[in-house]
Amino acid sequence: MSDLEVVAEPGRQDILITRTFDAPRETVWRALTEPELVARWFGLDETTTEVDPTEVRTGTPWRTSERTRDGEVYAFHGVHHEVRAPERMVRTFEFEGYPGHVSLETLTLEEAEGRTEYRVVALFQSVEDRDGMVASGMESGLAQSLDKLEEVLRSLR
Amino acid sequence: MSDLEVVAEPGRQDILITRTFDAPRETVWRALTEPELVARWFGLDETTTEVDPTEVRTGTPWRTSERTRDGEVYAFHGVHHEVRAPERMVRTFEFEGYPGHVSLETLTLEEAEGRTEYRVVALFQSVEDRDGMVASGMESGLAQSLDKLEEVLRSLR
Repeated sequence: MSDLEVVAEPGRQDILITRTFDAPRETVWRALTEPELVARWFGLDETTTEVDPTEVRTGTPWRTSERTRDGEVYAFHGVHHEVRAPERMVRTFEFEGYPGHVSLETLTLEEAEGRTEYRVVALFQSVEDRDGMVASGMESGLAQSLDKLEEVLRSLR
Repeated sequence: MSDLEVVAEPGRQDILITRTFDAPRETVWRALTEPELVARWFGLDETTTEVDPTEVRTGTPWRTSERTRDGEVYAFHGVHHEVRAPERMVRTFEFEGYPGHVSLETLTLEEAEGRTEYRVVALFQSVEDRDGMVASGMESGLAQSLDKLEEVLRSLR
């Protein structure tokens, strides 16, 4: 059972996501930024993920897409505002199926006693956009992704 | 007298800025994106502005700096998430004097009867960041900048 928490306080424009991983911060950072590792955990269990191989650094764009068995594609893209390995990343995020609605994600990783706290604040252009993301079932999708991330981290030990 | 409005509703994480300019949208877009034009209006009256000449398009970084007569430098930077000439731009924004605090700006330009409505929603990582920006006197600085933008537009007729 993971300690995933997804908090969306009424009336605010953000979602706070936290989870602890049993791995050092450098390892979690690798799994979050190396394309071939991201492809192993990002997305739902039944989809195949492709990750744009552009280097993850300040000022570069990113794009990730998931393909279902039926051939449908769900793609996401944005730009890296700041990348400071292995502790912080600020990037924009847009789901191509809902174009024009952009969020700003701030990721921080903190290590304590060999474990790493993963923390993301996702900030939306309106309360409605934020509430729509919560209502879309993002929490169960996220839980699937982060469980797979835990497996990737285990394989890197 | 301009019709500048700066709205920061209590408890929200954004600021809404609107102003009408007496110029067609294509002209306003040029003044907002061509480095040599931006340098003429961005910043306070008494500073000299330098604009990074990187092309304004989706996926590129940007940086603008103001130098005071005393040689102090106030710089701002970010990345363009989306650039759709001449109507919409979404970019990140960070004041280098307050590092780590990032905002997401969405600009839209709408033309009606030869005049253009300039509208920016600036979204902050916390209500505190938003309130701090309002308290910093951003409205008077913005008013100065946008008055100079009006002059630049007049010169482009």
